Amino acid sequence: MGMEVVCFDLEGVLVPEIWINVAEKTGIEALRLTTRDVPDYDELMVYRLGILEKEGLGIAEIQNVIAQLSPMPGAAQFLAWVKQNFQVIILSDTFYQFAAPLMTQLDYPALFAHNLIIDDRGRIVDYKLRMRDQKAAAVRALQELNFTVFAAGDSYNDTGMLLAADRGFLFRPPAKVIEEFPQLPVFTEYDALKAEFVSSSSRSIG
Amino acid sequence: MGMEVVCFDLEGVLVPEIWINVAEKTGIEALRLTTRDVPDYDELMVYRLGILEKEGLGIAEIQNVIAQLSPMPGAAQFLAWVKQNFQVIILSDTFYQFAAPLMTQLDYPALFAHNLIIDDRGRIVDYKLRMRDQKAAAVRALQELNFTVFAAGDSYNDTGMLLAADRGFLFRPPAKVIEEFPQLPVFTEYDALKAEFVSSSSRSIG
Repeated sequence: MGMEVVCFDLEGVLVPEIWINVAEKTGIEALRLTTRDVPDYDELMVYRLGILEKEGLGIAEIQNVIAQLSPMPGAAQFLAWVKQNFQVIILSDTFYQFAAPLMTQLDYPALFAHNLIIDDRGRIVDYKLRMRDQKAAAVRALQELNFTVFAAGDSYNDTGMLLAADRGFLFRPPAKVIEEFPQLPVFTEYDALKAEFVSSSSRSIG
Repeated sequence: MGMEVVCFDLEGVLVPEIWINVAEKTGIEALRLTTRDVPDYDELMVYRLGILEKEGLGIAEIQNVIAQLSPMPGAAQFLAWVKQNFQVIILSDTFYQFAAPLMTQLDYPALFAHNLIIDDRGRIVDYKLRMRDQKAAAVRALQELNFTVFAAGDSYNDTGMLLAADRGFLFRPPAKVIEEFPQLPVFTEYDALKAEFVSSSSRSIG
């Protein structure tokens, strides 16, 4: 271990895209959009909450769907290795209430995320971003604490974090993110990313 | 889960005092001093490294001793509960090289610590503090990321962190720390601290 922190995006890197899976399980096609499609996160969330209200879907229904998901194949083993060799913080623009069943399966890494506002009847009435651009802000805060930061993500909302990090990596990104950010190396397999972390580290990792 | 982070000191709160145990196992009484006895950390470390050099003790010998230690009784279960209900970061003025065997037993929580400088022959020739007053700085950084921070520690080097936190708690501190910091509530059992976290949280925790 050492003075290096690895920051991971959650959805698309370690677990499946939550909203896409909610869309599939519920059959509501309009919920398929992600930040891959709509870069403005607020715009996307207002749209999603409107659909949930219209369809009468509450937190219980969505948590039931999420509880059926699993981390991406190999993700739990990969993350366990990274935690043994680096300090790990997950930086996600999802909500703690959505992430909870997946965090259980990943053995509760430290997660910096946002909160949903849920009313007495279990309806998601609003959301509270802990802060804007929290991913890049967290990377800068860690650097100010004298950590070297490696980061991996897949989407538009990760690029601030990836560019702020000492080493930023795209993991299985869509083609248009690759095109717009040619300076970020692209990885598609955990083993290759693992090897990159080892060679990027100032320490000799077994 | 929510927008609350719990920061823990490591030694004396979750695991035994490492240097005291190294002193006991090696029979070198002079290594028993801790920040409980010498508040100035640099002074203490220069003293310790001098003794190690004089006694011819390298990193391998000390790691062997540390590998025989276990977390404090109940600590692993307590920490597992906290990780399920809060985000956890361990803030320790120990070194990654010392903490490693104990982190394995605590399932690798995120750890902010320091590094030892070890030469080719395995001698600890120096140490590198990641930064001065890193514990309080980490608490403030988390607060600037809009987290509410709870913190628990036992020693002089924790008081900056405990006073900076939104809620700071002393856990099994020596009498003189209690006397000097009467504003910090004192806990001696994990269950009582757990109940305090629950009642301090803005969320309803089961």
